[in-house]
Amino acid sequence: MRRIITIGREFGSGGREVGKRLSDKLGIAYYDSEIITEIANRTELAEGYVQHVMENSPSNLIPITIGRTFYMGADPVMEMNNNIYREQSLLIQELAEKSDCVIVGRSADYILRDKNPLRVFVYAGLESRMERCRKRAPEQEHLSEKELRRQILDVDRRRGKYYQFFTGQTWSEPINYDVCFNTSKGNIKEVVEAIVKLVK
Amino acid sequence: MRRIITIGREFGSGGREVGKRLSDKLGIAYYDSEIITEIANRTELAEGYVQHVMENSPSNLIPITIGRTFYMGADPVMEMNNNIYREQSLLIQELAEKSDCVIVGRSADYILRDKNPLRVFVYAGLESRMERCRKRAPEQEHLSEKELRRQILDVDRRRGKYYQFFTGQTWSEPINYDVCFNTSKGNIKEVVEAIVKLVK
Repeated sequence: MRRIITIGREFGSGGREVGKRLSDKLGIAYYDSEIITEIANRTELAEGYVQHVMENSPSNLIPITIGRTFYMGADPVMEMNNNIYREQSLLIQELAEKSDCVIVGRSADYILRDKNPLRVFVYAGLESRMERCRKRAPEQEHLSEKELRRQILDVDRRRGKYYQFFTGQTWSEPINYDVCFNTSKGNIKEVVEAIVKLVK
Repeated sequence: MRRIITIGREFGSGGREVGKRLSDKLGIAYYDSEIITEIANRTELAEGYVQHVMENSPSNLIPITIGRTFYMGADPVMEMNNNIYREQSLLIQELAEKSDCVIVGRSADYILRDKNPLRVFVYAGLESRMERCRKRAPEQEHLSEKELRRQILDVDRRRGKYYQFFTGQTWSEPINYDVCFNTSKGNIKEVVEAIVKLVK
Protein backbone atom coordinates (compact mmCIF):
# COMPACT_ATOMS: atom_id res chain seq x y z
CA MET A 1 0.00 0.00 0.00
CA ARG A 2 1.47 3.36 -1.05
CA ARG A 3 1.47 5.85 1.78
CA ILE A 4 3.80 8.62 0.75
CA ILE A 5 1.81 11.72 -0.07
CA THR A 6 3.33 14.94 -1.34
CA ILE A 7 1.32 18.16 -1.33
CA GLY A 8 2.09 21.08 -3.59
CA ARG A 9 -0.06 24.09 -2.84
CA GLU A 10 -0.87 27.62 -3.87
CA PHE A 11 -0.31 30.13 -1.09
CA GLY A 12 -3.46 30.51 1.01
CA SER A 13 -5.23 27.50 -0.48
CA GLY A 14 -5.19 25.44 2.72
CA GLY A 15 -2.70 22.85 1.46
CA ARG A 16 -0.94 22.76 4.82
CA GLU A 17 -4.25 22.12 6.62
CA VAL A 18 -5.05 19.35 4.14
CA GLY A 19 -1.64 17.78 4.86
CA LYS A 20 -1.95 18.07 8.63
CA ARG A 21 -5.46 16.62 8.75
CA LEU A 22 -4.46 13.85 6.38
CA SER A 23 -1.49 12.80 8.49
CA ASP A 24 -3.71 12.77 11.61
CA LYS A 25 -6.35 10.72 9.81
CA LEU A 26 -3.86 8.16 8.48
CA GLY A 27 -1.69 8.21 11.58
CA ILE A 28 1.48 8.89 9.59
CA ALA A 29 4.28 11.44 9.84
CA TYR A 30 3.89 15.05 8.67
CA TYR A 31 6.75 17.22 7.42
CA ASP A 32 6.63 20.87 6.50
CA SER A 33 8.77 23.50 8.23
CA GLU A 34 10.48 20.66 10.16
CA ILE A 35 12.50 20.15 6.99
CA ILE A 36 13.93 23.66 7.15
CA THR A 37 14.87 23.24 10.84
CA GLU A 38 16.65 19.96 10.14
CA ILE A 39 18.55 21.34 7.15
CA ALA A 40 19.63 24.31 9.25
CA ASN A 41 20.96 21.86 11.84
CA ARG A 42 22.80 19.79 9.28
CA THR A 43 24.34 22.68 7.40
CA GLU A 44 24.91 24.80 10.52
CA LEU A 45 23.23 27.73 8.77
CA ALA A 46 20.54 29.94 10.29
CA GLU A 47 16.96 28.74 9.73
CA GLY A 48 16.04 32.11 8.29
CA TYR A 49 18.77 31.82 5.70
CA VAL A 50 17.81 28.26 4.75
CA GLN A 51 14.20 29.34 4.37
CA HIS A 52 15.20 32.29 2.23
CA VAL A 53 17.24 30.08 -0.10
CA MET A 54 14.45 27.51 -0.33
CA GLU A 55 11.96 30.15 -1.33
CA ASN A 56 14.05 31.75 -4.04
CA SER A 57 15.59 30.12 -7.08
CA PRO A 58 19.17 31.40 -7.17
CA SER A 59 19.32 31.63 -10.92
CA ASN A 60 17.39 30.53 -13.94
CA LEU A 61 20.56 29.98 -15.87
CA ILE A 62 22.35 27.23 -13.99
CA PRO A 63 20.56 23.90 -13.69
CA ILE A 64 20.86 21.91 -10.46
CA THR A 65 21.43 18.18 -10.70
CA ILE A 66 19.82 16.63 -7.66
CA GLY A 67 22.09 14.60 -5.43
CA ARG A 68 25.26 15.69 -7.16
CA THR A 69 27.39 18.55 -5.92
CA PHE A 70 29.18 20.65 -8.44
CA TYR A 71 31.54 23.52 -7.85
CA MET A 72 30.98 26.99 -9.07
CA GLY A 73 34.61 27.90 -8.54
CA ALA A 74 34.67 31.41 -7.20
CA ASP A 75 31.04 31.69 -6.02
CA PRO A 76 30.76 30.55 -2.39
CA VAL A 77 27.11 31.69 -2.08
CA MET A 78 26.05 29.52 -4.99
CA GLU A 79 27.99 26.64 -3.51
CA MET A 80 26.27 27.07 -0.16
CA ASN A 81 22.88 27.18 -1.85
CA ASN A 82 23.69 24.01 -3.73
CA ASN A 83 24.53 22.34 -0.45
CA ILE A 84 21.15 23.37 0.91
CA TYR A 85 19.40 21.87 -2.12
CA ARG A 86 21.41 18.70 -1.81
CA GLU A 87 20.66 18.39 1.90
CA GLN A 88 16.99 18.96 1.22
CA SER A 89 16.89 16.23 -1.39
CA LEU A 90 18.77 13.75 0.81
CA LEU A 91 16.68 14.57 3.88
CA ILE A 92 13.36 14.16 2.05
CA GLN A 93 14.54 10.82 0.70
CA GLU A 94 15.58 9.72 4.19
CA LEU A 95 12.23 10.75 5.67
CA ALA A 96 10.33 8.81 3.00
CA GLU A 97 12.52 5.74 3.61
CA LYS A 98 11.90 5.91 7.35
CA SER A 99 8.11 5.71 7.35
CA ASP A 100 4.87 6.56 5.56
CA CYS A 101 4.46 10.32 5.53
CA VAL A 102 2.88 13.50 4.20
CA ILE A 103 5.36 16.10 2.91
CA VAL A 104 4.18 19.60 2.11
CA GLY A 105 6.02 21.59 -0.56
CA ARG A 106 9.81 21.44 -1.15
CA SER A 107 9.46 19.77 -4.57
CA ALA A 108 8.99 16.46 -2.72
CA ASP A 109 6.81 15.11 -5.55
CA TYR A 110 9.83 15.31 -7.84
CA ILE A 111 12.50 14.30 -5.31
CA LEU A 112 10.53 11.16 -4.44
CA ARG A 113 9.43 10.30 -7.98
CA ASP A 114 11.06 6.85 -7.85
CA LYS A 115 8.95 5.98 -4.80
CA ASN A 116 5.65 6.56 -6.64
CA PRO A 117 4.13 8.95 -4.09
CA LEU A 118 0.57 10.21 -4.39
CA ARG A 119 1.22 13.69 -5.75
CA VAL A 120 -1.47 16.13 -4.63
CA PHE A 121 -1.79 19.79 -5.65
CA VAL A 122 -4.10 22.15 -3.76
CA TYR A 123 -5.31 25.38 -5.32
CA ALA A 124 -8.11 27.92 -4.93
CA GLY A 125 -9.51 31.13 -6.37
CA LEU A 126 -7.69 34.29 -5.37
CA GLU A 127 -10.63 35.70 -3.42
CA SER A 128 -10.88 32.57 -1.33
CA ARG A 129 -7.13 32.59 -0.68
CA MET A 130 -7.22 36.21 0.41
CA GLU A 131 -10.02 35.44 2.83
CA ARG A 132 -8.08 32.50 4.22
CA CYS A 133 -4.97 34.64 4.68
CA ARG A 134 -6.95 37.28 6.53
CA LYS A 135 -8.36 34.69 8.92
CA ARG A 136 -5.11 32.82 9.50
CA ALA A 137 -2.67 35.68 9.77
CA PRO A 138 -4.09 38.57 11.77
CA GLU A 139 -0.65 40.20 11.64
CA GLN A 140 -1.37 40.96 8.01
CA GLU A 141 -4.40 42.99 9.00
CA HIS A 142 -2.71 46.21 7.97
CA LEU A 143 -2.32 45.09 4.36
CA SER A 144 -4.65 46.56 1.79
CA GLU A 145 -6.52 44.25 -0.59
CA LYS A 146 -4.05 45.16 -3.28
CA GLU A 147 -1.02 44.51 -1.08
CA LEU A 148 -2.34 41.17 0.12
CA ARG A 149 -3.13 40.08 -3.45
CA ARG A 150 0.36 41.08 -4.53
CA GLN A 151 1.92 39.19 -1.60
CA ILE A 152 -0.01 36.01 -2.43
CA LEU A 153 0.89 36.15 -6.11
CA ASP A 154 4.49 36.89 -5.22
CA VAL A 155 4.80 33.80 -3.01
CA ASP A 156 3.24 31.69 -5.79
CA ARG A 157 5.62 33.14 -8.33
CA ARG A 158 8.61 32.31 -6.15
CA ARG A 159 7.34 28.81 -5.46
CA GLY A 160 6.84 28.31 -9.17
CA LYS A 161 10.33 29.51 -10.01
CA TYR A 162 11.92 27.44 -7.28
CA TYR A 163 10.07 24.31 -8.42
CA GLN A 164 10.95 24.96 -12.05
CA PHE A 165 14.60 25.50 -11.18
CA PHE A 166 14.80 22.40 -9.08
CA THR A 167 12.73 20.00 -11.20
CA GLY A 168 12.66 21.39 -14.73
CA GLN A 169 8.87 21.05 -14.56
CA THR A 170 6.08 23.61 -14.38
CA TRP A 171 4.84 23.97 -10.82
CA SER A 172 1.08 24.31 -11.27
CA GLU A 173 0.79 22.03 -14.33
CA PRO A 174 -1.75 19.24 -13.52
CA ILE A 175 0.19 16.58 -15.43
CA ASN A 176 2.87 16.75 -12.71
CA TYR A 177 0.33 15.63 -10.10
CA ASP A 178 -2.04 12.70 -9.58
CA VAL A 179 -4.85 14.88 -8.34
CA CYS A 180 -5.53 18.60 -7.99
CA PHE A 181 -8.13 19.94 -5.54
CA ASN A 182 -9.82 23.32 -5.64
CA THR A 183 -10.53 24.39 -2.05
CA SER A 184 -12.36 27.62 -2.92
CA LYS A 185 -15.56 26.21 -1.42
CA GLY A 186 -13.84 25.50 1.90
CA ASN A 187 -14.33 21.72 1.64
CA ILE A 188 -11.05 20.71 3.30
CA LYS A 189 -12.57 17.78 5.21
CA GLU A 190 -14.07 16.22 2.07
CA VAL A 191 -10.77 16.71 0.24
CA VAL A 192 -8.97 14.80 3.00
CA GLU A 193 -11.54 11.98 2.81
CA ALA A 194 -11.08 11.81 -0.96
CA ILE A 195 -7.27 11.61 -0.65
CA VAL A 196 -7.62 8.74 1.83
CA LYS A 197 -9.53 6.82 -0.86
CA LEU A 198 -6.72 7.45 -3.34
CA VAL A 199 -3.96 6.06 -1.10
CA LYS A 200 -5.87 2.97 0.01
CA MET B 1 -26.81 16.80 -0.58
CA ARG B 2 -25.41 17.89 -3.93
CA ARG B 3 -25.52 15.11 -6.46
CA ILE B 4 -25.00 16.73 -9.82
CA ILE B 5 -21.60 15.81 -11.17
CA THR B 6 -20.18 17.13 -14.42
CA ILE B 7 -17.15 15.49 -15.99
CA GLY B 8 -14.89 17.26 -18.46
CA ARG B 9 -12.25 14.96 -19.91
CA GLU B 10 -9.29 14.77 -22.19
CA PHE B 11 -9.79 12.33 -25.05
CA GLY B 12 -8.64 8.84 -24.05
CA SER B 13 -8.32 9.65 -20.34
CA GLY B 14 -11.17 7.38 -19.24
CA GLY B 15 -13.50 10.20 -18.21
CA ARG B 16 -16.48 8.39 -19.67
CA GLU B 17 -15.64 5.23 -17.67
CA VAL B 18 -15.28 7.33 -14.52
CA GLY B 19 -18.72 8.84 -15.17
CA LYS B 20 -20.40 5.50 -15.92
CA ARG B 21 -18.95 3.77 -12.85
CA LEU B 22 -19.81 6.74 -10.68
CA SER B 23 -23.45 6.78 -11.78
CA ASP B 24 -23.68 3.02 -11.11
CA LYS B 25 -22.10 3.45 -7.69
CA LEU B 26 -24.37 6.33 -6.68
CA GLY B 27 -27.43 4.92 -8.43
CA ILE B 28 -28.05 8.14 -10.33
CA ALA B 29 -28.64 8.98 -14.00
CA TYR B 30 -25.83 9.12 -16.55
CA TYR B 31 -25.86 11.30 -19.66
CA ASP B 32 -23.35 11.37 -22.44
CA SER B 33 -24.25 10.61 -26.07
CA GLU B 34 -27.91 10.42 -25.00
CA ILE B 35 -27.82 14.21 -25.11
CA ILE B 36 -26.96 14.24 -28.79
CA THR B 37 -29.74 11.77 -29.58
CA GLU B 38 -32.29 13.85 -27.72
CA ILE B 39 -31.20 17.10 -29.36
CA ALA B 40 -31.41 15.41 -32.75
CA ASN B 41 -34.97 14.39 -31.91
CA ARG B 42 -35.93 17.86 -30.74
CA THR B 43 -34.37 19.73 -33.64
CA GLU B 44 -35.26 17.09 -36.24
CA LEU B 45 -31.66 17.13 -37.44
CA ALA B 46 -29.54 14.04 -38.08
CA GLU B 47 -27.55 12.83 -35.05
CA GLY B 48 -24.36 12.94 -37.09
CA TYR B 49 -24.92 16.59 -37.88
CA VAL B 50 -25.71 17.51 -34.27
CA GLN B 51 -22.57 15.70 -33.14
CA HIS B 52 -20.49 17.50 -35.74
CA VAL B 53 -21.75 20.90 -34.62
CA MET B 54 -21.21 20.04 -30.97
CA GLU B 55 -17.63 19.07 -31.63
CA ASN B 56 -16.67 22.16 -33.61
CA SER B 57 -16.96 25.77 -32.57
CA PRO B 58 -18.53 27.52 -35.56
CA SER B 59 -16.50 30.67 -35.12
CA ASN B 60 -14.25 32.33 -32.64
CA LEU B 61 -15.58 35.70 -33.56
CA ILE B 62 -19.22 35.60 -32.57
CA PRO B 63 -20.03 34.99 -28.91
CA ILE B 64 -23.00 32.81 -28.03
CA THR B 65 -25.25 33.89 -25.19
CA ILE B 66 -26.65 30.77 -23.62
CA GLY B 67 -30.42 30.49 -23.54
CA ARG B 68 -30.98 33.42 -25.88
CA THR B 69 -31.46 33.06 -29.59
CA PHE B 70 -30.15 35.74 -31.87
CA TYR B 71 -30.49 36.02 -35.59
CA MET B 72 -27.61 36.21 -37.96
CA GLY B 73 -29.81 37.45 -40.76
CA ALA B 74 -28.71 35.74 -43.92
CA ASP B 75 -26.79 32.81 -42.37
CA PRO B 76 -29.15 29.85 -41.91
CA VAL B 77 -26.33 27.48 -40.92
CA MET B 78 -25.26 29.70 -38.06
CA GLU B 79 -28.87 29.99 -37.00
CA MET B 80 -29.28 26.23 -37.00
CA ASN B 81 -26.12 25.84 -34.96
CA ASN B 82 -27.34 28.36 -32.46
CA ASN B 83 -30.54 26.37 -32.12
CA ILE B 84 -28.47 23.30 -31.35
CA TYR B 85 -26.53 25.14 -28.63
CA ARG B 86 -29.72 26.49 -27.17
CA GLU B 87 -31.38 23.07 -27.16
CA GLN B 88 -28.31 21.59 -25.51
CA SER B 89 -28.33 24.17 -22.77
CA LEU B 90 -32.06 23.77 -22.12
CA LEU B 91 -31.87 19.98 -22.20
CA ILE B 92 -28.96 19.80 -19.75
CA GLN B 93 -30.81 22.12 -17.40
CA GLU B 94 -33.93 19.97 -17.68
CA LEU B 95 -31.98 16.80 -16.95
CA ALA B 96 -30.35 18.32 -13.88
CA GLU B 97 -33.77 19.50 -12.65
CA LYS B 98 -35.27 16.06 -13.09
CA SER B 99 -32.90 14.07 -10.90
CA ASP B 100 -29.37 13.67 -9.54
CA CYS B 101 -27.07 12.85 -12.43
CA VAL B 102 -23.62 12.55 -13.95
CA ILE B 103 -23.16 14.48 -17.20
CA VAL B 104 -20.07 13.91 -19.32
CA GLY B 105 -18.78 16.75 -21.49
CA ARG B 106 -21.02 19.28 -23.29
CA SER B 107 -19.86 22.22 -21.13
CA ALA B 108 -22.32 21.03 -18.48
CA ASP B 109 -20.11 22.43 -15.69
CA TYR B 110 -20.75 25.91 -17.08
CA ILE B 111 -24.39 25.41 -18.13
CA LEU B 112 -25.27 24.18 -14.62
CA ARG B 113 -23.11 26.67 -12.71
CA ASP B 114 -26.10 28.03 -10.77
CA LYS B 115 -26.81 24.53 -9.44
CA ASN B 116 -23.38 24.20 -7.83
CA PRO B 117 -22.44 20.86 -9.42
CA LEU B 118 -19.28 18.98 -8.48
CA ARG B 119 -17.10 19.86 -11.48
CA VAL B 120 -14.65 17.06 -12.25
CA PHE B 121 -11.93 17.11 -14.91
CA VAL B 122 -10.17 13.91 -15.96
CA TYR B 123 -6.80 13.97 -17.72
CA ALA B 124 -3.83 11.72 -18.37
CA GLY B 125 -0.44 11.59 -20.03
CA LEU B 126 -0.45 11.20 -23.78
CA GLU B 127 1.19 7.74 -23.72
CA SER B 128 -1.46 6.43 -21.35
CA ARG B 129 -4.24 7.92 -23.50
CA MET B 130 -2.82 6.34 -26.63
CA GLU B 131 -2.71 2.96 -24.93
CA ARG B 132 -6.29 3.35 -23.78
CA CYS B 133 -7.42 4.30 -27.29
CA ARG B 134 -5.69 1.24 -28.74
CA LYS B 135 -7.45 -1.05 -26.26
CA ARG B 136 -10.86 0.54 -26.56
CA ALA B 137 -11.06 1.13 -30.29
CA PRO B 138 -9.64 -1.79 -32.27
CA GLU B 139 -10.96 -0.12 -35.43
CA GLN B 140 -8.11 2.36 -35.04
CA GLU B 141 -5.57 -0.44 -35.27
CA HIS B 142 -4.40 0.76 -38.65
CA LEU B 143 -3.36 4.17 -37.27
CA SER B 144 0.35 4.78 -36.77
CA GLU B 145 1.59 6.14 -33.44
CA LYS B 146 1.91 9.53 -35.04
CA GLU B 147 -1.59 9.45 -36.54
CA LEU B 148 -3.17 8.34 -33.27
CA ARG B 149 -1.33 11.05 -31.33
CA ARG B 150 -2.51 13.64 -33.86
CA GLN B 151 -6.08 12.38 -33.63
CA ILE B 152 -6.10 12.58 -29.82
CA LEU B 153 -4.65 16.08 -29.77
CA ASP B 154 -7.07 17.14 -32.49
CA VAL B 155 -10.12 16.01 -30.48
CA ASP B 156 -8.74 17.85 -27.42
CA ARG B 157 -8.16 20.97 -29.46
CA ARG B 158 -11.73 20.91 -30.75
CA ARG B 159 -13.16 20.25 -27.30
CA GLY B 160 -11.10 23.14 -25.97
CA LYS B 161 -12.27 25.50 -28.69
CA TYR B 162 -15.89 24.45 -28.30
CA TYR B 163 -15.76 24.95 -24.54
CA GLN B 164 -14.05 28.30 -24.90
CA PHE B 165 -16.60 29.46 -27.49
CA PHE B 166 -19.51 28.36 -25.38
CA THR B 167 -18.33 29.44 -21.93
CA GLY B 168 -15.64 32.07 -22.42
CA GLN B 169 -13.44 29.96 -20.13
CA THR B 170 -10.34 27.87 -20.80
CA TRP B 171 -11.26 24.20 -21.03
CA SER B 172 -8.38 22.50 -19.21
CA GLU B 173 -7.77 25.25 -16.65
CA PRO B 174 -8.05 23.73 -13.11
CA ILE B 175 -9.71 26.81 -11.63
CA ASN B 176 -12.82 25.96 -13.68
CA TYR B 177 -13.16 22.64 -11.84
CA ASP B 178 -13.47 21.45 -8.25
CA VAL B 179 -11.12 18.54 -8.74
CA CYS B 180 -8.87 17.23 -11.52
CA PHE B 181 -7.79 13.60 -11.67
CA ASN B 182 -4.80 12.18 -13.53
CA THR B 183 -5.69 8.64 -14.66
CA SER B 184 -2.29 7.82 -16.20
CA LYS B 185 -1.78 5.10 -13.59
CA GLY B 186 -5.07 3.42 -14.50
CA ASN B 187 -6.63 4.03 -11.06
CA ILE B 188 -10.20 4.58 -12.28
CA LYS B 189 -11.82 2.70 -9.38
CA GLU B 190 -9.98 4.74 -6.74
CA VAL B 191 -10.88 7.95 -8.58
CA VAL B 192 -14.57 6.97 -8.46
CA GLU B 193 -14.31 6.25 -4.70
CA ALA B 194 -12.69 9.64 -4.17
CA ILE B 195 -15.41 11.45 -6.10
CA VAL B 196 -18.06 9.72 -3.98
CA LYS B 197 -16.41 11.27 -0.88
CA LEU B 198 -16.57 14.70 -2.49
CA VAL B 199 -20.31 14.57 -3.21
CA LYS B 200 -21.32 13.18 0.16
